[in-house]
Amino acid sequence: MSAWRLVEEESEPRQPRTGRPRTGGRRMLVVAAVVLLTLVGAGGLAAARTGMFAERPDGCVKPDRTIQLYAVELPKDGTQVRLGYGLTPQTASYPGPLMEMMEGECLAITLHNQVPEATLAALRTSPTHPLGVSLHVHGVKYTQDSDGTVQSGSYVPSGGSRTYTWYAQPRNNRTGAQGTAGYWWYHDHVVGGPHGTQGLSAGLFGGLVVRRPGDPKPDRTYTVAFGDRQSINLRRGEATDTCTEVNPQPGPTCLVARKGERVEFVVVGIGNDMHTFHLHGHSWADTRTGVVSNGQPFADSVPIIDNKTLGPGDSFGAQVVAGDSVGPGHWMLHCHMQFHSDAGMSTMLHVLDENGNMPPGMDHEHGAAGATSATAADGGEHQHD
Amino acid sequence: MSAWRLVEEESEPRQPRTGRPRTGGRRMLVVAAVVLLTLVGAGGLAAARTGMFAERPDGCVKPDRTIQLYAVELPKDGTQVRLGYGLTPQTASYPGPLMEMMEGECLAITLHNQVPEATLAALRTSPTHPLGVSLHVHGVKYTQDSDGTVQSGSYVPSGGSRTYTWYAQPRNNRTGAQGTAGYWWYHDHVVGGPHGTQGLSAGLFGGLVVRRPGDPKPDRTYTVAFGDRQSINLRRGEATDTCTEVNPQPGPTCLVARKGERVEFVVVGIGNDMHTFHLHGHSWADTRTGVVSNGQPFADSVPIIDNKTLGPGDSFGAQVVAGDSVGPGHWMLHCHMQFHSDAGMSTMLHVLDENGNMPPGMDHEHGAAGATSATAADGGEHQHD
Amino acid sequence: MSAWRLVEEESEPRQPRTGRPRTGGRRMLVVAAVVLLTLVGAGGLAAARTGMFAERPDGCVKPDRTIQLYAVELPKDGTQVRLGYGLTPQTASYPGPLMEMMEGECLAITLHNQVPEATLAALRTSPTHPLGVSLHVHGVKYTQDSDGTVQSGSYVPSGGSRTYTWYAQPRNNRTGAQGTAGYWWYHDHVVGGPHGTQGLSAGLFGGLVVRRPGDPKPDRTYTVAFGDRQSINLRRGEATDTCTEVNPQPGPTCLVARKGERVEFVVVGIGNDMHTFHLHGHSWADTRTGVVSNGQPFADSVPIIDNKTLGPGDSFGAQVVAGDSVGPGHWMLHCHMQFHSDAGMSTMLHVLDENGNMPPGMDHEHGAAGATSATAADGGEHQHD
Repeated sequence: MSAWRLVEEESEPRQPRTGRPRTGGRRMLVVAAVVLLTLVGAGGLAAARTGMFAERPDGCVKPDRTIQLYAVELPKDGTQVRLGYGLTPQTASYPGPLMEMMEGECLAITLHNQVPEATLAALRTSPTHPLGVSLHVHGVKYTQDSDGTVQSGSYVPSGGSRTYTWYAQPRNNRTGAQGTAGYWWYHDHVVGGPHGTQGLSAGLFGGLVVRRPGDPKPDRTYTVAFGDRQSINLRRGEATDTCTEVNPQPGPTCLVARKGERVEFVVVGIGNDMHTFHLHGHSWADTRTGVVSNGQPFADSVPIIDNKTLGPGDSFGAQVVAGDSVGPGHWMLHCHMQFHSDAGMSTMLHVLDENGNMPPGMDHEHGAAGATSATAADGGEHQHD
Repeated sequence: MSAWRLVEEESEPRQPRTGRPRTGGRRMLVVAAVVLLTLVGAGGLAAARTGMFAERPDGCVKPDRTIQLYAVELPKDGTQVRLGYGLTPQTASYPGPLMEMMEGECLAITLHNQVPEATLAALRTSPTHPLGVSLHVHGVKYTQDSDGTVQSGSYVPSGGSRTYTWYAQPRNNRTGAQGTAGYWWYHDHVVGGPHGTQGLSAGLFGGLVVRRPGDPKPDRTYTVAFGDRQSINLRRGEATDTCTEVNPQPGPTCLVARKGERVEFVVVGIGNDMHTFHLHGHSWADTRTGVVSNGQPFADSVPIIDNKTLGPGDSFGAQVVAGDSVGPGHWMLHCHMQFHSDAGMSTMLHVLDENGNMPPGMDHEHGAAGATSATAADGGEHQHD
Repeated sequence: MSAWRLVEEESEPRQPRTGRPRTGGRRMLVVAAVVLLTLVGAGGLAAARTGMFAERPDGCVKPDRTIQLYAVELPKDGTQVRLGYGLTPQTASYPGPLMEMMEGECLAITLHNQVPEATLAALRTSPTHPLGVSLHVHGVKYTQDSDGTVQSGSYVPSGGSRTYTWYAQPRNNRTGAQGTAGYWWYHDHVVGGPHGTQGLSAGLFGGLVVRRPGDPKPDRTYTVAFGDRQSINLRRGEATDTCTEVNPQPGPTCLVARKGERVEFVVVGIGNDMHTFHLHGHSWADTRTGVVSNGQPFADSVPIIDNKTLGPGDSFGAQVVAGDSVGPGHWMLHCHMQFHSDAGMSTMLHVLDENGNMPPGMDHEHGAAGATSATAADGGEHQHD
């Protein structure tokens, strides 16, 4: 454990090796430090390291809501270990549960790590890396205590639990706070290595939507994570679409809607690769909400798009009115990188008619000869050059 | 052919494995299906599969305009098969003809597939994949009958023809329709495999601009597709620029303008790789039109850029006033990925003076020692790491 | 040297192989050329080639300010040659000095090339490529004489100097000029090859901010270049962060601020790879300034983000109020491509409290076992597929 402990000393902040004009004559009080450096090699010490930073972000006096969240091991997908977050251990999944907040709301999430330590040990890439699961979130506010990182000690050893506080800070013209409404995501930052790479690829991630009063209300929301090995929500090819013709059950692997319903996608990039999110027959506004109010003068300037590049860590919202003008049908949703879609990074938005019927006339083959699982041998033969 | 045929049954739509709050108590009528599954293995059956979905999107009562479009085989580029769309068979090219629509317009395009079946057979990646050419479009509205995909049967066998209907749906505040004005593109979705990968890389693509009343009117429009093998419009190095010093002919491989002309680029990403579109000496607004009206209060918030990342499937518009402030000259236009530009992914916008003269003083070498064709051996030696 | 010299001849500009409607009946005066082609193989000829285009862009009657800039060789980083720009030879660095301009301002920068010719010769990729260093800038206006490219001859042989003129053209509603305020960068375009690839990877680049009256004023500005070999400002792992616990000195490898300070990042993409810029605990508006004024009606439409994809050549600004709501701490700043961050493409924004103290309680390990320098063997083992 190291501390930046400071003794008083006055100094001008210098900008070494830059020639920029000084923006002000500010002085900075800096204080000489006595450095206490202790390497933390065991997750069990994590609890002991908390409490030195504020538990809650400024503006969150008290959580408005509490949630119990479980990290569990799921059945393997081929040889690939799968982990998931769930509101109960029995409902853990990948992606994890969609979280929804209103701007201004403060949420306390208690994460229970039920992943066996042996599983975490098998996933880690260095023998000194701590064993634990964490919860790191994008977009909303949290203190270092809820950062979900190794260096802040904010993770949970197997069998333990820890409460993370998220604050959907609202806009504030006086302080310049920009607000936190948006399409975000949460994920582990600890399993396997200091960036949670193994936790993410095993399934420890989910979507988060923070709304602002007046935002359009969707009829359905689907989380769609585009990731490595040509995967959508860690599946590819036929495994991306488990819809049955009879009574299809909406979920991360069954994107279905009735004509006229407002469908919202929380699109997330994970892993190592670039992707593009493309949907046939539908388009959306490249704005905070995925919608633009046409009465506004700037509506003329906003791009309407049907394909959007996203890198790992990116997230955005796309809202469409299912089947508007184009009618019902099996509308392809895929990555437009050709070698990705050819390898099975392609699924369907099934749009039924207003009565919940699909007109006859076509199958809904994905057109991907690819494997049914992202853990199968790679179908892509692309050479980057 | 499978049909989602439904018998009445009431069920609550469940959101399995997600914890999001129910946004409403809606019920969904779902009906048990009798599944009729017939695999369609021959393009010749395609015609038989149409007509079960609407032919035209809602809002298009009757096409305002009709176009004949021909898909033909062009002379090989080295060993690379080349295909092109053309308004006549004799004028087919890659990229294909620029399409322009006004919001509100409905267009019927009859595609005549004149590509020999043997050529399509040689390009396909699976012996059961159907032989045909299609027309898939981004941004505007179309029913499944005009989707241009295998699964919807909306493609054309060799020697056949098929009419595709595109509707440039306008904005509608009541229904929430976002409008379709924008910079789009069209392409084959069938040649070689279910995503048209071979058709695209052979040349079956083109640009589409949908305008809104009041949009700025360009003096010249150039389609610029950034794609695999460090290519601009499927060429690289010297082949990207066929301008002659005497009477240069504007076209996809000769980007030329006079100082003061408003030049519009329809920039499209195709293939497998990421690229960035960069133009020397000029910049544009990152908006729907590539322009921002400076009188608007939000003009202060809009980024002005001279380099934009695009992935496959992305398309955007960039509008510049040629030579404004910077004067005439040979202005480089290239991908800013260094190994791409070094391998010849670089061309020029030649800006002549107001009288159509180029001041003396410089050659217009592209500075790429690279091959003259994208089909040559790759010049890039980059290792992704 | 070739010249587009023109004799009078009238011709209709044709759009060969495109079917777009003619946007006007304009005629183009084109003039037959006498081509004088002389290959320039020596940087020494560069001076002789200037002066045929205007020296200054329209709107810049006379420079408002002059700067001396030096290109020098710095100590090697392992086996990697390092070059840097500096306002003095002694303060050269990578990135080079941050340049700041106001819209409307015209700047004359005299570049002195103090890099030994032998070093430039060792870096070039072709024996006929000229030896020199140049200054190419994004976003602002310059004539061909200040383009910094080989083909325009606007570079500087070793021991020489050359003045480049940059004009931060303001918005103009009458002419349609979009303005040049934004977050830009400058770089060499000549060292090693015609795109300056070796110059860039050696360190010849820096940030540029052009402001508009009324823009928010930052307390601190940091240039952050994301580039090849998992590097931030050409370093990786521990080398990205040279902050000391006692009196940390702000600079390109020490990102530090006090709670409440407005911190501005000039984020630049260089090299060959895609990256994403992610900052823990903070977010910014995806606008020209990285900020949105919340009183504006369009503020509701602007995305607030904490992760942004950037390709080579891209640049943008991100402004955050350090520690707002989240408090002090060691906030990770990293590429969210997992194999990049795992290999050490990760540093910290150290946020001290209002008094300049860091609360005790945690070390600031980067969590990257990676090498301390981007020149070390690659740690990434990612296979693109």
